[in-house]
Amino acid sequence: MKRSIICRQLGYEFNTPALFKQALTHRSFGMPHNERLEFLGDSVLNCVIANQLYHQYPRLPEGDLSRLRAHLVNKQTLYEIAQSLHLGDHVLLGEGELKSGGFRRPSILADTLEAIFGAVFLDNGFVAAEKVIGRLYAPLLQGLDAKNMGKDSKTLLQEYLQGHRIPLPSYSVVATHGEAHQQHFEVECLIPELNIRSRGDGPSRRSAEQSAAKEAYRLATET
Amino acid sequence: MKRSIICRQLGYEFNTPALFKQALTHRSFGMPHNERLEFLGDSVLNCVIANQLYHQYPRLPEGDLSRLRAHLVNKQTLYEIAQSLHLGDHVLLGEGELKSGGFRRPSILADTLEAIFGAVFLDNGFVAAEKVIGRLYAPLLQGLDAKNMGKDSKTLLQEYLQGHRIPLPSYSVVATHGEAHQQHFEVECLIPELNIRSRGDGPSRRSAEQSAAKEAYRLATET
Repeated sequence: MKRSIICRQLGYEFNTPALFKQALTHRSFGMPHNERLEFLGDSVLNCVIANQLYHQYPRLPEGDLSRLRAHLVNKQTLYEIAQSLHLGDHVLLGEGELKSGGFRRPSILADTLEAIFGAVFLDNGFVAAEKVIGRLYAPLLQGLDAKNMGKDSKTLLQEYLQGHRIPLPSYSVVATHGEAHQQHFEVECLIPELNIRSRGDGPSRRSAEQSAAKEAYRLATET
Repeated sequence: MKRSIICRQLGYEFNTPALFKQALTHRSFGMPHNERLEFLGDSVLNCVIANQLYHQYPRLPEGDLSRLRAHLVNKQTLYEIAQSLHLGDHVLLGEGELKSGGFRRPSILADTLEAIFGAVFLDNGFVAAEKVIGRLYAPLLQGLDAKNMGKDSKTLLQEYLQGHRIPLPSYSVVATHGEAHQQHFEVECLIPELNIRSRGDGPSRRSAEQSAAKEAYRLATET
């Protein structure tokens, strides 16, 4: 896979291609790897997003800005962007990681993307990194729902129900699968007043509840 | 007090003096206050310090860089820099805060300094903020002890003793003063092998232990 494909998507050409290669190098592959670049890139990303949000929402209080930023810079969001760039095709991994499918691991892909931001910053300064990050984040920043972004599904559902004076939902585990240390939960969310009975599943009771609440919220706001 | 005095210490003249005034304005004084600038400044500071450490320690692993940065950007360090600038003389506070001595409150002064970094960034970009922060942090960055910085006293003492194959110290509370919710602790740290018996005190058992460990470490490394 040619690295130039990613460069085109980033809208950036490296002056020092070795920096780009380092950003793509997982520690399992050998030195120089991308961990220090990730440290740097994480702080660059935080700063760029803080600045974008500051300008995009001139009246939003500090607490809301922090919440929005946390949502935008978390590993899940980074992973989704990394996937859209097909970063997994370009990551350099040691043999062990390669065999165990490391190129699909969300944390490895998210970290690699942060390392790329750090590499651009080192290569050409803050404004260059700002451009690259701005380009990748533009769809997310445009689609931001400043009021609700970053709230989890249970909170969203609860606020919706309270706003409509409807009693809060009840959650119950309807099934568990697997062994003790690798359980999988199925949870039901019940809102009798809306005739809603939704299901969700996940590796913990909490995540299964969130998944059930998400579906219930969708159903409640559709009707 | 003239604001130009701080500008001279910062080595920076604002293009938009209103931004500087806003950075000095605590929310108790009214709008526009400095909370959003503080949000921005915090992330600018993080990024600048990350970059400085990245270059200053070309071989330091990510974890150590994070630890060093945490030490440099924490509220206590910011407060100490704010004090050296006499920021308390320039902060704009509401009457209530003024009467209760808010201009001496570490958190207010630390936040104000972060807001100033945010204001410089907005006023003239990343490189300008980098210069101001670099100037204020130069003495701290020069005096960094990369190996031990950021480690607490109990950890330092423990590592020292392990390195010399000396059994770990024992800590015991020798006295508590005050009522339940406002207790003050006195702790003794004992290292029989070194003939060390040190004391420390603090508002929690933990902090008293740290204080006793600090004294014990001093005694142990002196002998």
